[in-house]
Amino acid sequence: MQNSSTSPSLHNPWYGHHLRVRYQETDRMGVVFHGNYVTWFEVGRTEWIRALGISYKQLEEQGLLLPVVDLNIRYQHPARYDDEVIVFTRLKKLSPIRMTFQSMVTQVSEEERKAAFASSWVAEPIGSTLVEGETTLAWVGSDWKPKRFDRERPDIWGQLKQVSSS
Amino acid sequence: MQNSSTSPSLHNPWYGHHLRVRYQETDRMGVVFHGNYVTWFEVGRTEWIRALGISYKQLEEQGLLLPVVDLNIRYQHPARYDDEVIVFTRLKKLSPIRMTFQSMVTQVSEEERKAAFASSWVAEPIGSTLVEGETTLAWVGSDWKPKRFDRERPDIWGQLKQVSSS
Amino acid sequence: MQNSSTSPSLHNPWYGHHLRVRYQETDRMGVVFHGNYVTWFEVGRTEWIRALGISYKQLEEQGLLLPVVDLNIRYQHPARYDDEVIVFTRLKKLSPIRMTFQSMVTQVSEEERKAAFASSWVAEPIGSTLVEGETTLAWVGSDWKPKRFDRERPDIWGQLKQVSSS
Amino acid sequence: MQNSSTSPSLHNPWYGHHLRVRYQETDRMGVVFHGNYVTWFEVGRTEWIRALGISYKQLEEQGLLLPVVDLNIRYQHPARYDDEVIVFTRLKKLSPIRMTFQSMVTQVSEEERKAAFASSWVAEPIGSTLVEGETTLAWVGSDWKPKRFDRERPDIWGQLKQVSSS
Repeated sequence: MQNSSTSPSLHNPWYGHHLRVRYQETDRMGVVFHGNYVTWFEVGRTEWIRALGISYKQLEEQGLLLPVVDLNIRYQHPARYDDEVIVFTRLKKLSPIRMTFQSMVTQVSEEERKAAFASSWVAEPIGSTLVEGETTLAWVGSDWKPKRFDRERPDIWGQLKQVSSS
Repeated sequence: MQNSSTSPSLHNPWYGHHLRVRYQETDRMGVVFHGNYVTWFEVGRTEWIRALGISYKQLEEQGLLLPVVDLNIRYQHPARYDDEVIVFTRLKKLSPIRMTFQSMVTQVSEEERKAAFASSWVAEPIGSTLVEGETTLAWVGSDWKPKRFDRERPDIWGQLKQVSSS
Repeated sequence: MQNSSTSPSLHNPWYGHHLRVRYQETDRMGVVFHGNYVTWFEVGRTEWIRALGISYKQLEEQGLLLPVVDLNIRYQHPARYDDEVIVFTRLKKLSPIRMTFQSMVTQVSEEERKAAFASSWVAEPIGSTLVEGETTLAWVGSDWKPKRFDRERPDIWGQLKQVSSS
Repeated sequence: MQNSSTSPSLHNPWYGHHLRVRYQETDRMGVVFHGNYVTWFEVGRTEWIRALGISYKQLEEQGLLLPVVDLNIRYQHPARYDDEVIVFTRLKKLSPIRMTFQSMVTQVSEEERKAAFASSWVAEPIGSTLVEGETTLAWVGSDWKPKRFDRERPDIWGQLKQVSSS
């Protein structure tokens, strides 16, 4: 699923990114430590924006930071070592100063993962749901003061606007 | 603040546990990675229950697990490398199958931290608030099926009941 | 590079596994925290053994654990957020009770990574070297007492023996 | 052990810093993931230098960075959740461009930990040894080019020189 096209034509699509659970991510309960899904959500957002042709790294190097201001997670089933999971990400809400992403982590069989490989933008997540959540981030400058993203980067703002209302 | 007494006499008190921000916990934004507060919340809960004279480790070794089912975090200000922070924890809701904890991470000066040393159970958190959140956990057996905690460990259940209504 | 064939025909080959640097893996120096390469080495070993058709997870579930007893790392250049890296892994030494793996993390351009995709077993690592190291692990039972792997799993032992002397 | 005096009078003393094993630090083998000792070694160095009256954070903010160039670890026994451990740190080798630290992680009983509280600089580590290692770091500027520390900060250099030869 890594090499996907850059223009989602679906209505409010999800972007799926495949991960394999690392040994380090487990805890003594034998499952993924609950805090590690936060890292996966972040990976999902990085890949979502890359799939739109935008590099979050470059935005940051131009002095635009995107710290998290709010996070909610619901845990349904645990992921375990070596499981194949897909982190699905979509934009839920967009304003000039904040973005809210919706994330869903599902477990997939090897077959499901291979089938999903060709199409990273999907209308609906596949696999069985493990964890769901929302993350709200705010645009700030390198001084950590709020920035209006529509004024800072009208080009990317237009692109995000289109995705969120598509 | 590590060596505290075991019987809180305050109404619904907070337990404060001191931490120093580790280099590993920072990210390239120069602040603590937002997922790491989840680890601190967990440390806070472990110390809260220890301060009541209960070892969470022993409960787990008797086959009672306490996985997280719900998590909410609001981020106000970031913690930075080497900051002195206190994780304040209190029980917010208690039922025979679930517990909800409230957590607050504050930044303190060296003086505030030393002053707080003598009294770990406090009516109100001290310091300037960085991050706040709630974590809901569910009692399950080693087969991950729900357990009624009041029946499994009536002794500890009674103790928790008393704290939550004190 | 994830979907590779299972029979290396090269002499003492390396197995390459592609990773993208996560935001969480960076520290306030702006680079990957030095401890995180240990996690990548572990991911490399898991993928190396999977590429041989063996599931480390299954071995562990049959009561064979493989804790680390010795680790050496030399750091030449840092990896940074969003870098494309490849973790190359090969078996360096094999005895009935211990295995030593050699790991090399290189940075690759997007082009190099795509070119390498088709052939995960390689005679020599590609890309520019960031970090190199060796990890020695010992076979133990679920009681943490040493186990002779050649007696426990003669089938897999034979396979590893062949790889190490190929 | 946190509040110690700043002038070690012992010959080549160790500085001990107490830690409690966090749930997040364990893995599915039921023990601390082997990479996490690297984080503890770093915490130990930060506290070692603080105990000398030097803030590593301030050095870094003045443009002096200290990336790791070499790391060796020998694992003897695993630490487990909620264990009380002490990270002992001492300076092993000092040159104008590099520093090598020796680290030892021991497990202590509650009684041992309390007894050790008053004296953080010790001639010999107490407790039963879990893990030992050495870390070599190099002074660089914010451009990651080597810096001679004796010329950048002759005051601190003199102090380190004295400790290493005391």
